Amino acid sequence: MTLRYLTANLAQQIDEELMGAAGAFSLDQLMELAGLACAQTLATVYPRERYSRVLVGCGPGNQGGDGLVAARHLAMFGYKPTVYLPKLGSKEIYKRLHSQCQNMDIATINTEDDLRRRLEESDVVLDAIFGFSFQPPIRSPFDTALKLITDSKLPIVSVDIPSGWNVEEGNKDHVALRPDVLISLTAPKEGVRGFKGRHFLGGRFVTKEMERKYQLNLPEYPGFAQIVELPSGVSQKEKL
Amino acid sequence: MTLRYLTANLAQQIDEELMGAAGAFSLDQLMELAGLACAQTLATVYPRERYSRVLVGCGPGNQGGDGLVAARHLAMFGYKPTVYLPKLGSKEIYKRLHSQCQNMDIATINTEDDLRRRLEESDVVLDAIFGFSFQPPIRSPFDTALKLITDSKLPIVSVDIPSGWNVEEGNKDHVALRPDVLISLTAPKEGVRGFKGRHFLGGRFVTKEMERKYQLNLPEYPGFAQIVELPSGVSQKEKL
Repeated sequence: MTLRYLTANLAQQIDEELMGAAGAFSLDQLMELAGLACAQTLATVYPRERYSRVLVGCGPGNQGGDGLVAARHLAMFGYKPTVYLPKLGSKEIYKRLHSQCQNMDIATINTEDDLRRRLEESDVVLDAIFGFSFQPPIRSPFDTALKLITDSKLPIVSVDIPSGWNVEEGNKDHVALRPDVLISLTAPKEGVRGFKGRHFLGGRFVTKEMERKYQLNLPEYPGFAQIVELPSGVSQKEKL
Repeated sequence: MTLRYLTANLAQQIDEELMGAAGAFSLDQLMELAGLACAQTLATVYPRERYSRVLVGCGPGNQGGDGLVAARHLAMFGYKPTVYLPKLGSKEIYKRLHSQCQNMDIATINTEDDLRRRLEESDVVLDAIFGFSFQPPIRSPFDTALKLITDSKLPIVSVDIPSGWNVEEGNKDHVALRPDVLISLTAPKEGVRGFKGRHFLGGRFVTKEMERKYQLNLPEYPGFAQIVELPSGVSQKEKL
């Protein structure tokens, strides 16, 4: 029984079912649990004693929302996050999530210059820029942002699909990020089969029925944890 | 710097501020994190290997909502919760939270007979019946329900304020529950100063500014945990 890797379409369908009759979840709930899982993954690998300054890159879509939630939880955990948010998504929820960050005294930056400067004063990057609904090409200002993040040589934790990767085909673009750590949400996506770093799974809200229906074969989460680390090499075994 | 115990009015005010400009949280978000903290507290004290069958008593207010969220997370953790829900609150959110439980195959019971039978087949009770806005007297069917829960002699985990206790004066009613474990949300309430069992705190979403403004002096949560156990005897020291 092997873990299933999702196509972009299937990932989209599962998200819709979670918020439809089969799940009945609100976006607020799913994003809260997803963002918490992202923050806990970063905190697991990069303890705040050595990596307190976190640059959280947020895109304009739902993944940017996960990033805003994660930034807030990181601040709660004692980190000093800064949110890079060049374009705030238009949905009302993003405004609320951003206000929550501001209420936690989390700084927001949005220009290339600010990003360059802030990366020099950061210890680790949380990449919540593009998610599974990303379609190439990488548009400005994110093309430059990805390059700056890569050039910073900081450790990177990517959410769901590393920014710039093709959701199904993986890393095809020379400006795509090369993260050290990946946190997949709900189930991993096709494009990360070849990922070699530490790989976690979060989004502990998929019903048993949905898991059976889509044969997700999710691993067991330990105790009451909201994240589970996937054994290294699983991706490679799956591939053969 | 001693932990502050909240009056009912102050607890209400803090809740309103969390959902107003100072917090910008939605009820969905706060309830999700509160319910997760309740489920994690129960799982910390009563491992599922010995206490898998959990009776989750849900009142008609916000605390019943926390209970529904906790029941869902407990099911995710591998427990077999049953929800006792004699009256579903009228707010739309309660319907959604209840649908989420049904989608997780969690049984709901609502009569006295069903409660009596189910208690005989349960290992532990999560008491999310009355919260800090409870005003006596204890009305039917909850008067009988509390008596049945006490008579069951099962271990009890109460949320925020044990059901039947006066929020500020504590245990004054002979049918009030006598829980073994308490999970306070945001900050403990005046009425639980004298509580003698294991006492946890959850609701890790209070901003530093709100904490300062109200001199809450919250304890430090460990790492990225969503709950923290209060040192035993703190309640007594505070009292002197």
